[in-house]
Amino acid sequence: MSNQDTDLPASPNAAINIGLCGFGTVGQGVWKHLKRDRAELAARLGVPLRIAAISVRDPQRPRAIKLPAKLLRADPLEVATDPAIPIVCELMGGTALARRVTLAALKAGKIVVSANKALICEHGAEIFATARKHGGHFFFEASVAGGVPIIKALREGLIANRFPQIYGILNGTCNYILTQMEERDAPYAEILAEAKALGYAEADEALDVQGWDAAHKAAVLAWLAHGLWVPPSRMIVEGIERVTPADFKNAAQLGYSIKLLAIITRDFSTEELSVKVHPALLPDSDVIASVNGVYNAISVTGDIVGTTLYIGKGAGQDATASAVISDIADAAALLRSGRCARLPSELAPLPSAAAAPSTVKLAPLERIEGRYYLRLTVRDEPGVLARIASVMARHAVSISSVLQTPSEFPDMASLVLTTHQANERAMRDTLRQLARLSIVSGAPLLLRICEFKT
Amino acid sequence: MSNQDTDLPASPNAAINIGLCGFGTVGQGVWKHLKRDRAELAARLGVPLRIAAISVRDPQRPRAIKLPAKLLRADPLEVATDPAIPIVCELMGGTALARRVTLAALKAGKIVVSANKALICEHGAEIFATARKHGGHFFFEASVAGGVPIIKALREGLIANRFPQIYGILNGTCNYILTQMEERDAPYAEILAEAKALGYAEADEALDVQGWDAAHKAAVLAWLAHGLWVPPSRMIVEGIERVTPADFKNAAQLGYSIKLLAIITRDFSTEELSVKVHPALLPDSDVIASVNGVYNAISVTGDIVGTTLYIGKGAGQDATASAVISDIADAAALLRSGRCARLPSELAPLPSAAAAPSTVKLAPLERIEGRYYLRLTVRDEPGVLARIASVMARHAVSISSVLQTPSEFPDMASLVLTTHQANERAMRDTLRQLARLSIVSGAPLLLRICEFKT
Repeated sequence: MSNQDTDLPASPNAAINIGLCGFGTVGQGVWKHLKRDRAELAARLGVPLRIAAISVRDPQRPRAIKLPAKLLRADPLEVATDPAIPIVCELMGGTALARRVTLAALKAGKIVVSANKALICEHGAEIFATARKHGGHFFFEASVAGGVPIIKALREGLIANRFPQIYGILNGTCNYILTQMEERDAPYAEILAEAKALGYAEADEALDVQGWDAAHKAAVLAWLAHGLWVPPSRMIVEGIERVTPADFKNAAQLGYSIKLLAIITRDFSTEELSVKVHPALLPDSDVIASVNGVYNAISVTGDIVGTTLYIGKGAGQDATASAVISDIADAAALLRSGRCARLPSELAPLPSAAAAPSTVKLAPLERIEGRYYLRLTVRDEPGVLARIASVMARHAVSISSVLQTPSEFPDMASLVLTTHQANERAMRDTLRQLARLSIVSGAPLLLRICEFKT
Repeated sequence: MSNQDTDLPASPNAAINIGLCGFGTVGQGVWKHLKRDRAELAARLGVPLRIAAISVRDPQRPRAIKLPAKLLRADPLEVATDPAIPIVCELMGGTALARRVTLAALKAGKIVVSANKALICEHGAEIFATARKHGGHFFFEASVAGGVPIIKALREGLIANRFPQIYGILNGTCNYILTQMEERDAPYAEILAEAKALGYAEADEALDVQGWDAAHKAAVLAWLAHGLWVPPSRMIVEGIERVTPADFKNAAQLGYSIKLLAIITRDFSTEELSVKVHPALLPDSDVIASVNGVYNAISVTGDIVGTTLYIGKGAGQDATASAVISDIADAAALLRSGRCARLPSELAPLPSAAAAPSTVKLAPLERIEGRYYLRLTVRDEPGVLARIASVMARHAVSISSVLQTPSEFPDMASLVLTTHQANERAMRDTLRQLARLSIVSGAPLLLRICEFKT
């Protein structure tokens, strides 16, 4: 198939025009695959698709993919408000301009397709309200778990269910780093540097490794499943930076892997919701414990269907383009059937549209319970364990196992404790007090042990 | 919520009427969960759902779930053709009456929801043609993998993709039996008897254990992905009845588990498709190798998205009801938006609706290649391996490993061979000749070794 715009169908009126705002990795993927599969997709959809405008930062800049000059726009708002373009793909990233572009398109009653989890997390309430008010639509399959159709599964496929538990690996960069650390017994900094060189991690890695990217995605899933916008500032969010090769060895000895998990649980009797992102010790028997590298995995427990699990590449040009194109296809079907029509994906869990106001609320720290893994660097002398144990006992945190290993520092030891069930509040208080002890050097590392019922 | 029909919304006109044909396990599950979640689902869909008629074999028979007498019908065709019922759930099973009911409803322009893979496999072409001709719709999410929304994933979520490889566990009964045999080192017959007692296997187990149920589901997936109806008679279909505890031990020694797999592969250069159902040696590193018990798992490789994996309970009242209700929700959204509207799920891969006629064809046996595991009971005497190896060499089947273990029969040995790449034709010829050798006792057991690239 030619790469020229001129091989479009003879009757341009029949085609549905698509605008791409942004032509980075994802935009180029969408362009490439829409071009390649145009005939097949048109046959399936009953209508051809046509990329009619592309906004790029600098239209003059030479680029690897040759684009017809007449498609190029310097201003994404021009694409978003072009009356000839009913489907606008916001693929720029960032939240300021992306928000303006998205709202402008929705106010014009258009369908916006987005992969931008940070945007949804920060401005989702405003975006969906604007869509409803102006008859626009907002599709976001690519925002979570790349090409894995998890949004569609939650909104449509599992619509009969309530969701007491959703957890999984939502950030491929962290999973790649943790997998490499475990397999090669190598320190975090070394693997991070490699990951950057390989393009698996961004130049500024903070968003990924500190857990914020996973938190954005968790916010999207929590809203879909429970109708509540939970900002990352109100979640427990911890990153992977302090995990060491020794932690993998300790975990393995106890029968666990370490994964950065997002965990969304709701207790339907108290209506308390908790959303957390943190490195977790996951038992080897959990299928997600063996999901390695850049893959994402999401376990969804529905009260009717039981537990279903979804695994696939969580990022990358092609996987993300696959999800964006599936949204474009849904959008095209929606347009073709008349603007009056609403897809189930529109109706389904836009939970805020539900008749009864949701009573779900965030769980207080006292009621977020679990088991913990605690690694302390302590002075290698008698009586140390007794003092630590007594601090823990004071907070009603009871010890399940103790492992002492040599420390890298002279006259020090590494003490690894696991606890029985305790709550986040008690653990925070415990941690604060332990850090103050003269026998404890540096900040203790706290990891959570997650043994999910499925 | 009361179990009475009288708690329906005041304005019956606003509600969408649903008819259930059949009130067995699945029908009762749909009733139970629709009743329980009616308010929530109505809020999400923007329209209440109302079960308006239920056909049962004997309306007089006392049953555990009390149904209002006015809902009961003795004739499913009465439900299927009732003009007040736009959504008909065919949940009777079987293919003769189910076909008549389905076609009658579709001819009346209705939406039929079905969990009946045997029906789709046998009469899918007729059913979809009838739906298209009369403006009816046929939804079948529950027909494959229970509550896992795999149909929606293939039709909509992964619409941008071609599918070179789809494989997985599609029959929970077989997976339960194989898992138990492996874990408990117990013979097939013993576990089967247990599975029947527990209700995990039907009184007549043939459909499950001989691979036909998985073949029906594979036919549905192959059609969705490739637009070709492949009847089980034209697939390779082998069951699990001849697998023994010794095979699990041999497989484990070689680094494999044994699973009943359905495998659909298409070579897009030759346009050859193969659809197979057989017990397979799956390397322990394959996530599906650790999917145990009644769970199903499907690995879908798309040319854009890469490999995505879906896991969940493959059967049972609740999981199946979850899928049926998701179809009912899609149907309600379709009705609410006007009959003119077509869901993407309608448009998407009804591959036969594609403009260009598909050129895909079934691969001949010569071009279905793989590695094989062969277990023979042979006379325990010198020269046996040489004779067997020479038969194999004659068919250009080369041996990769040999394992000799004691046989349960006196003066006999059990010989386990694995091969390098060979094709189905060569293996069949080899097998036929080996079975004729006087040194070989009984029919050799052939299993396939599957090392999938993902």
